[in-house]
Formats: sequence, C-alpha cells, structure tokens
Amino acid sequence: MDIPPIPTGFDAAKLGEVLDGRWAEVRALVRDTLQDTELPPGNDLDVDSHRAWILDQMYRLADSGITQLGFPAEYGGKGDTGGSVVSLEMLAGNLSLMVKSGVQWGLFGGAVVALGTERHHDRYLEPIMSMDLPGCFAMTETGHGSDVQHLRTTATYDPGTEEFVVHTPHESARKDYIGNAAQHGRMAVVFAQLYTAGRDHRVQGHGVHALMVPIRDEDGHPLPGVRISDCGHKAGLNGVDNGRITFDRVRVPREALLNRYGDVEPDGTYRSPIDGESKRFFTMLGTLIRGRISVAGTAGSATKLALEIALRYGDTRRQFENPGTGDETPVLDYLGHQRKLLPALAKTFALHFAQEELVSTLHDVHGSDGRDERAQRELESRAAGLKAVSTWHATQTIQACREACGGAGYLSENQLPQLKADTDVFTTFEGDNTILLQLVAKGLLTHYKDQFDDLGTLGLARYVADQFFGTVIERTAARKLVQRLVDAAPGRDDEDVIFDRGWQLKMFEDREKHVLDALARRLRRATGDDADPFEVFNNAQDHVLRAARVHVDRVVLEAFVAGIERCGESTRTEDRSVAAVLERLCDLYVLSNIEADRGWFLEHERISSRRSKAITEAVNTLCRRIRPHAVDLVEAFGIPRQWLTAPIATGAETTRQENQRVHDRG
Amino acid sequence: MDIPPIPTGFDAAKLGEVLDGRWAEVRALVRDTLQDTELPPGNDLDVDSHRAWILDQMYRLADSGITQLGFPAEYGGKGDTGGSVVSLEMLAGNLSLMVKSGVQWGLFGGAVVALGTERHHDRYLEPIMSMDLPGCFAMTETGHGSDVQHLRTTATYDPGTEEFVVHTPHESARKDYIGNAAQHGRMAVVFAQLYTAGRDHRVQGHGVHALMVPIRDEDGHPLPGVRISDCGHKAGLNGVDNGRITFDRVRVPREALLNRYGDVEPDGTYRSPIDGESKRFFTMLGTLIRGRISVAGTAGSATKLALEIALRYGDTRRQFENPGTGDETPVLDYLGHQRKLLPALAKTFALHFAQEELVSTLHDVHGSDGRDERAQRELESRAAGLKAVSTWHATQTIQACREACGGAGYLSENQLPQLKADTDVFTTFEGDNTILLQLVAKGLLTHYKDQFDDLGTLGLARYVADQFFGTVIERTAARKLVQRLVDAAPGRDDEDVIFDRGWQLKMFEDREKHVLDALARRLRRATGDDADPFEVFNNAQDHVLRAARVHVDRVVLEAFVAGIERCGESTRTEDRSVAAVLERLCDLYVLSNIEADRGWFLEHERISSRRSKAITEAVNTLCRRIRPHAVDLVEAFGIPRQWLTAPIATGAETTRQENQRVHDRG
Repeated sequence: MDIPPIPTGFDAAKLGEVLDGRWAEVRALVRDTLQDTELPPGNDLDVDSHRAWILDQMYRLADSGITQLGFPAEYGGKGDTGGSVVSLEMLAGNLSLMVKSGVQWGLFGGAVVALGTERHHDRYLEPIMSMDLPGCFAMTETGHGSDVQHLRTTATYDPGTEEFVVHTPHESARKDYIGNAAQHGRMAVVFAQLYTAGRDHRVQGHGVHALMVPIRDEDGHPLPGVRISDCGHKAGLNGVDNGRITFDRVRVPREALLNRYGDVEPDGTYRSPIDGESKRFFTMLGTLIRGRISVAGTAGSATKLALEIALRYGDTRRQFENPGTGDETPVLDYLGHQRKLLPALAKTFALHFAQEELVSTLHDVHGSDGRDERAQRELESRAAGLKAVSTWHATQTIQACREACGGAGYLSENQLPQLKADTDVFTTFEGDNTILLQLVAKGLLTHYKDQFDDLGTLGLARYVADQFFGTVIERTAARKLVQRLVDAAPGRDDEDVIFDRGWQLKMFEDREKHVLDALARRLRRATGDDADPFEVFNNAQDHVLRAARVHVDRVVLEAFVAGIERCGESTRTEDRSVAAVLERLCDLYVLSNIEADRGWFLEHERISSRRSKAITEAVNTLCRRIRPHAVDLVEAFGIPRQWLTAPIATGAETTRQENQRVHDRG
Repeated sequence: MDIPPIPTGFDAAKLGEVLDGRWAEVRALVRDTLQDTELPPGNDLDVDSHRAWILDQMYRLADSGITQLGFPAEYGGKGDTGGSVVSLEMLAGNLSLMVKSGVQWGLFGGAVVALGTERHHDRYLEPIMSMDLPGCFAMTETGHGSDVQHLRTTATYDPGTEEFVVHTPHESARKDYIGNAAQHGRMAVVFAQLYTAGRDHRVQGHGVHALMVPIRDEDGHPLPGVRISDCGHKAGLNGVDNGRITFDRVRVPREALLNRYGDVEPDGTYRSPIDGESKRFFTMLGTLIRGRISVAGTAGSATKLALEIALRYGDTRRQFENPGTGDETPVLDYLGHQRKLLPALAKTFALHFAQEELVSTLHDVHGSDGRDERAQRELESRAAGLKAVSTWHATQTIQACREACGGAGYLSENQLPQLKADTDVFTTFEGDNTILLQLVAKGLLTHYKDQFDDLGTLGLARYVADQFFGTVIERTAARKLVQRLVDAAPGRDDEDVIFDRGWQLKMFEDREKHVLDALARRLRRATGDDADPFEVFNNAQDHVLRAARVHVDRVVLEAFVAGIERCGESTRTEDRSVAAVLERLCDLYVLSNIEADRGWFLEHERISSRRSKAITEAVNTLCRRIRPHAVDLVEAFGIPRQWLTAPIATGAETTRQENQRVHDRG
C-alpha cells in the first residue's frame, strides 16, 4: 500500500507551536506560572486535608492573574473568553484544582457576568476574581439533574418586603453535588422556579431564574434557614468540596435576582426581554456554555497526559525476548500495544483541532456585540457534541493507558489511577453525554431552526416529517477546502483511495447524511395519529444517538483537515514536515473510525468486503509508521512538565533496564 | 418479529437456585457466614487503617472455616477445590478481603500444596489455613511481569552448607507488587532461577523453581538480607499491602525448595520427573491455575453487584416527563439506557454459566488421580480465555453502571467507584489479558498438541503451516446438544432464523473456524526462509487476539446453552419458566455479540445487510422484553445482601420520589 512516509527528522517543537495555536500566549503564561508557583495535586491527602490544600492553591492561582482572563476588562479582567477556557485545560495534572477553579471562576463567576447586570458586577466580580467571595453554582437538584428545566426549588416574590423567598419544598428539590458547597462557599447562584403574584394575588410562574443567595457567614457557618450537608468521598476530585443545600424559606432582597433576562419590579410585576419560559431558560443556559467547553478541553488535556505516560513507558518497557535478536522487545513494538494506544493518539490530535475551533467560535460569538442566534445555536450543538465525544474518549483512552502500563499503571505514583478517577465524572456532569448527544440530534433534525416553543416529542417528530428533507448538511469553518478535496477525490475503484482525504471526507459526510435521512424517515413512518410520541422517539433512541455521533465525527474530521491545511500551506520545510506527520495521524483517525464502524459501511454498501479488509491492514501499517514518532508526538502536546511525575514515564524504567543490561553482560 | 414472550410470573427464586448451581452449599455457607460475621469493606479508611482492618477480617474469615475449603482433608481442609474458588468470588463486596484471601490461601497456600511435598505440607498447611503464618507469592519482578519464565532472581545451591542462596542481582529482579509483602507476610514462596554446580563445579541452570523463604521475624521485622519496600497507594485494593522484596544472598536450607517437580540432592545433583525446563515450568504454573479462575469468578460477581446497583436505580430513578402521560419516565424505560446495561446483563449470565463449567472442570481435573495432560491443557486455555473476557467485561460493565447512575454513581457511598477501582487491575494481574489471549490463540493454532519444547515463534509458524489444517474445533461439555441444535437449524433464508439457537451456534462456530483458518494461512504465507519470525507473528497480532476472542465467545455460548438445557429438560413449570427467561437472555447475548461484530459477519458474507439490520432491531426488541424483569434477574444472582449498601439501590430513591409525588399532588 502506498502511504507517504513520515519525515524522520520532523520538527517536534514546530508541531508544538502548531498545537499551541491561537492561545499560545495563554499556554505559555500557564507554563511559566507553574514554574514559579508549585501546585502539586496532593492526591495522597485525606479528604479534609486535600480540600484545604486545594483551597490554598485557589488563592495562589488567583494571585497569579490567570483566573481573571475571562472577566470583563472594566472590572480588572482581560475579557479573553477563549483564553479562560484554555487556561483551565492546562491544569490537567491537578484536576481538583481545575474543577474548583471552574466552579469559582467559570460557573459561579460566569453566571454573575452572564446573567447579572451592573449592580451585580459592581458588587461581586472583584471579590469573586480574588477568591474573597468563594461561591457555588447551585443548579442540579437531587431529583433533577439532566432535566434541569423542571427543578423544584422555588423563589417566590413577596412585594410586602420586596424580597424573594427561596425554598426547598422536599428532598428531591435539594441542591446536590454542588462544588464549593460542603465547606468553602459563602454565596450561591441558586436556580429556582420564579413565582410572582400580580395585583389580583394570582400566582404566576416564570420558569427557572438565578438568584444570589448568601449561604455562609464570614466565619463559615451556614446562615439561618440554610442546611448544608456533605456529599462525602467520591471516586475522584476529592479536593473539591461537593455538598447539598436545602433552603427553608430563606429571604433575599429583590436585587438578588440575576436580572439580565428577567426582572421583577418592586410591586411584583415580571418583565423579560424574552417571551416564553422555555426560550428564556435556554437562552440563559446558552450563556453558560463555557463550562461545558472547558470540560471538553480538560478531558483532552487529561487524555494527552495519560497518553504521554503510557507511550513513554511503552517506548522503554521491554518484555519477551525476540528470538531473532536475543533482545527483549519494547512493548510498543507489539502491534497489539500499538493498536491499544495509537488510534487513540490520532483521535486525540483530531479532537485537539476540533476543540481549538470550538474555543475560537465561542470567543468570537460571545465576543461580538450583536448576538447571532444561529451562530449561538451552532455553538451550543458543537459544544454538546464535542463534550460528549471528548469525555468518552478520555474515559476509554485513560483506561487503555492504565491497562497498557500493567501493574505499574495501577500504582498511584504513576498518575493514571488519579487521572482515571478524576475524569470519570466528566462523562456525566456539565450535561450527561447521552442527553447531550440527544440534543445534538434534535438540533440536526430541526436543521437548527428555532425550537424554543414547546413542541414536545410528537411535535418534533411531525416537524421532522414535514420539513427535514432537502436539508443541507452544515459545514465547519473548513467548508471550501472540504468541498475542494471532496471534488478532487479519485474514483472509488482506485485501490489507494482510502488514503485520499477527499474520499475520507466524503465517507464521513455521506454517513452523516444517510443516518439522518433514515432517522427522519423512520420517525415520520412511525408517527401515525394513534402513535404514542414518547414510544416513537424512544424506539429510535439508538438511531438518534448514532446520528449525533457520526455528525460529531464529521465535524471533528473537518477541523483536523483545516488545521493541517494551515501548516501545509506554508512553504517552510519545518511546517511541511509537521503537516506530513499530521496527515498520517489524520489517516489513522479516519481509517480506525471507519474500521470500528465498518458494520455500517458494509451494511450500506459504502465499502466492499475487500476494501474493508484493506482498511484494517492500513490501520496496522499506519500504527507501525507512527510508532517511532510516538514520544515526539506526545511531547508536542506541551503538557506542563510539572504535571508529568510518574516514575515510569520519567526515567525509572530506562535506568532499571540499563542496570539489568550491564549486569547481564558483566 | 416473532420472539417468544417471557412469562410474566417467572420464578426468580428458582432462577437463583439454577444460578447457585453445583456449589449451592458453598454459596449458602458464605451467605450464612456473612450474616454472623460482619466484614464491611472499610473503604473510607486511610491506607494503614484499611490494611489493619482487612488483616483483622482475615482472622475472622479463617475462624469461619470458609478458607479451609480448598486444602487437603488430611490437614483439616475439605479438599473442595471448586468450592474454594466459589467461596472467594462470594466476597465481591469487599475486594481487598477477597484479594488478600486469594494471596494467603489461594496463591501462597495453593503453591505450598501444589508444588511442595509432605515435608512442606506437614509443617506449613495448618498455620497457613489459620493465618498463623501469613505469606506471600513472590513471582512477579519489576523487570518481568508477563514474561515470568525469564525472571532474574537466583537460587544457587551451596553443597558446602546444603543451603540455597536466594539473591536479587539488580533492581529489575526485585519482586514487585507482591500482596502481603509490605506489612504482614512472614514467609514467601519465592520463584527463582535454580542453579546447581555438579561435581565438576560447572554451574547448571534448571529454570524457575519455588522456595519457601522467611522474610520477617515474629515481630514483623524484615530478616537479615531481606529488604522490603511498600508499593504505596494504588487505584484500589488499598486494604492489601503490596510490596517489593529484594534478597541479598539470603540462605535457606535445602528442604526449603518446593520439590514436587524438581529437587536437589545434598551433593547438588538435580533431579526432576519432567524433562525440559520449559515443560517443567509450565507444568508448575498449570498447578496454580486456580488463582486465575478465582479472578474470573470474582470479576463476574463484582459485575453482578454493579449491575444490581445500576438496574435497581434505573428501575426507580425518573427523569423527564412523558408528555403523553405527564409522569416522569423511569430511566430504564429509555432504550439508550437499556442498551447500556441489558446486553451487559445478558453477557453476565452467559459468563456465569461458562465460569460454573470452568470451575467444575478444574475441580474434576485436579481432583482426579491420574493427570490427564490434554484435559489440563484445555483447562488452562479455558481459564486464560475466560479470565481475559470476564475481567474486560467487568471493567466495561462497571464503567457503564457508573455512568448510568450519573452523579450518584460517582459518590463512594453508592459503591460503584470502589468496585471500579478495585477490579481495574483484574485485567492485568494473574496474567495480562492480552498475553492470555495470545496463549489461547497459540494453543488453538497448535490444536492443543504438546508445545512444551521451545519451538519459538518461527517454529510455531512452521508448525502451524504444516499441521494445522483439518483441525476439528473443540467442543465444550455441551458437544452433543450443540450438534443436535446446529443440525436442526432452519435454512438461512428463514426470516426468524436469528432466534434459532442452532443458527446462532453455527454462526459462532463458523466464525471461530474461519478466523483460525485464515490466521493459519496468513502465517504460512508470511513464513519464507528470510522472514523474521518475530515480524511474521507480530504483524498478525490483531488477528491472533481476535482468534482467541471469538473462540472464547463460542465456548461461553455453548456453556450458556448447556445451562439452559439443564433447566429446560425439567418438566416442572417453574423450571420451564426459568428456562424461558434464560432463552431470551441467551438471544440477547448472541445477537448483541453479532451486532457488535457485524463488520466481520458482513465482510465474510455470513449475513446480509438486511439481516444485519434485523439483528440490530432484534437487540432493541429483546431489551424491551427483558426490561420489566431486570430487577428480578439481578436479584437472582444471589449476591449476599451485606454487600448491597448503596443508598440509590436500597430505597433512598424510591422514598424521595414518593415524597415529591405527595408534595406535587398536595
């Protein structure tokens, strides 16, 4: 098979620059900060000490200036939304610190910025940035996690005192899993169903809104009416103090309402710039998308760190003698070992470029003055899909890395146990992955048209049946380039066509379109007058989730292709050598994806049996080609060196083998 | 599609009896013991306290009589090999205790029984059973884990003093990950390369042998020449004190050699009933197979417990309103949720029957007087394959259960984090799964012929090319039944053929045969005179591993089919209703397996596109049919109630929802 070779002397440092991308300066800032500020994860501590340890680091991080990046310049921040996301993901070696930072500055601070108005910004942003006001983002309830629109905490306006009464009617409405709640938070952004009574005293609901509610006094004691308990020990992230909060008719002033999207006048009159509870709620949620994007990015960084550990170890660890040479074989020379790690490495590169594109879009969409509704919807869909795919990829890859390191990978000193445990919740927090993929699919089905009225499931199905057909599939930023490559793809009979980028793009695009078309047809067929809409949609749920997945696969591939194009366009030799290695990684990403999904491609006669087997062989060949570059490739990720402490990845294995060899020879 | 229904009132207790199987009495004994003896896992303790906690439980377990099951009756045991394996797997709720028990009574005690002779039995078995002599199984070394045949510790015989000198020549030869070593072990079975010098003073090596080496005095201090360090904190199993041991020319008497398969006379003459180092070594290893089988069984139990937690929670937890009914939907009613858990449940049943068959075989083969070499080889292959498949299944399923429980699944109180962390090492200890599957494949290629001479890889490839073709594929105990079902399978055009057991069996059998045939052909083709044998075998490693996997799949299916037949044969109604539910689980096991592997079945034209799609739909239908029985099915596993402590699985969720409903109505 004719695969272009990887230049032996490709410039790993140059690849590092390419990967650092648009926020290279922020990455450099974090790397520099970590050289001056020690922030070791403290995973060997017990829960109480670990929490205290991370709290202390929060103050040090606040002093470093990194955490102000995302706040408005007029309050001492940098107004750099993208940079704030990138800086968080750089904390991959201390995920308790990353998550607690995400809670304080991303979720809590971010909600005040996005949902509040000047009165809140003036009062709260500075103490939030400096950690003088540690806070919580109190959304999730014990009874409602994914279905956050139906949470049960109430905030009822009392015009007599011009206060809101925040109340937890029953245990299901208790705020749960709330970071910063168990010990350190002094205030919480509380999401609650807002009720007002008009002059006729009839109570009206306005849907979910957020209020600033103090929960602890200066000494850290819960305030009257606020009951707080501790979620206790978790699988990981034990440096974060997650807790549960119950409110017993707690009164806060009218001004406590974060009133950008809905306000209550002193007499109890409700006003909002957005009509419709559902649309208002989803608009509010949309402004908080940064947290989800940070989780996707951090999942990526954690995956990179795990791969760096496993690949450095695999490169040096030897097991079993090669009878031909008498030497023991480095385990990464085994095809089985390569297959465990190298397709995952290729996908990690692909997701890196997709994440970079997503962060850029977030930065540009949220940074522009006039809100572009359509761009915002696309951003939300992209964020949901990429968060799901990136966090599942992290879970699978870190697991594979752990296994690839055998017993050594089970020891805490080698970092993989903590990386696995800390990231495990990423697949289900900041939006459960399954729910997120379902959202993506619904968005695709309605072709991103506004679906903010409560269509419900049957409505959706009918809508799909009426309007779906003829939909043009959305393209990423690489639109033109992709079309050019697709148009230039050779005929499908060409044996080497599987290495042609245009053919690959066409395969992903065609799969997405076909899966979506078939889903729409299926829903329409099933939607008779007597059909139970829940059953119709639920019976197709596997198909729905699949549609979202193959959509994300295509989006990721296009981002990867665009990233390669950017360095391939350069005339400088070192850039072209970088492009060449990325090209092979892209081949491996695509072909291992098609291989894993070849059931579909064969079922739908997109590839022949012969080609399917050729693809399996091509994945093997690509693994062999990439293997010699594995260590250079993970080094190029530029994970701060402070985060790489595993003895098996930092020389212990090499030293030991050297001793063994000297002894065996002597 | 015509799938026979599941009887609504099937007898879950009766299913429990079927699952308890041949060692029902042992299972009952453990359940009773756990009612009288509290053995909570103590996972909230720090490492030191956790170790002390588990040590204390070891003494209580020893007092209960359970741990003596596997020892010879003449020393106060029960001689019940199968029972000893089953009793260990019943400790699934306290895996540190299970593993430490496995080390003490399975590995350490088992090695003394299997490799030692009367002098060792007389002296050591009673204190081992009573825990008066805590011990270690010191095989793995820092530099050699999987390639245990090439470990580097030496035991050199000194005829002058009639002693062996046990020595660690360099750091790679250090014993590593050794359970009981860091704190409690007082003696170790040490595996070392045995050297003697004949009368001509020429040193001769005899390969790996095991010796009884004291490592600590009565007060727990390391003995002179023995250096012990601690492996420290691990991902899980922190109640087990894993450590590293280095020997500096430690002298033990000649009688310390466990001399059943090789002995040294006072003058240094070496004698063994088995010629050839390699054959001798593998014979010794073969006697220790019980540990591997225990790990497979325990992986199964841990999977059952995780599924019980996730399915009980999924059955009660509700999220999102069904717009048709206004009620919130139990999450297990969603197809996506069913697909996460129910095919895994079906496979867990399949593996249960395969494990039962494996334990029976172990019991019968090791219990018989005359050793049947061929039966022993088959047992080893079966144990290796099932251990790999069961432990990977545990890792994947427990992960899926964790995710299916969302945030609640991340809290330690709900057990899933600990189950995940504790079982994670199962895929790489007691034989790394990848290595084990490779062993299985090699065994299949050589048609279980004796391969104890050092053929090496090239030899193997040539051997395969010469002799492989025409091999009859081995059948399990269900041989006759399987043939009858296969013969009775309807023609392949029948639409409902996918539910026919004969067709299903034929599919698995045919896949195995084809994958093996193709592998053998591939190896022969690649084996020219100038071919590098390592490259030849390594280039096909993905194919090699696949051959083993599909072999295990077939063995597991046949065991499942035989298990169903046993209760289906009964004329009693309750047995037949149990058989009916097992039939549907078996369908789900087979069809979800084919669905996941439909790439292969389509590539090789074993199924059409149309049938492939029908199989996907059948998996959905089976999930819906089985869903109402999910809780009954997991309850039938009979996991001791003491191990089910997760609040989400023991009523908390139901109570909370009831409160919410009362409030919503009021």
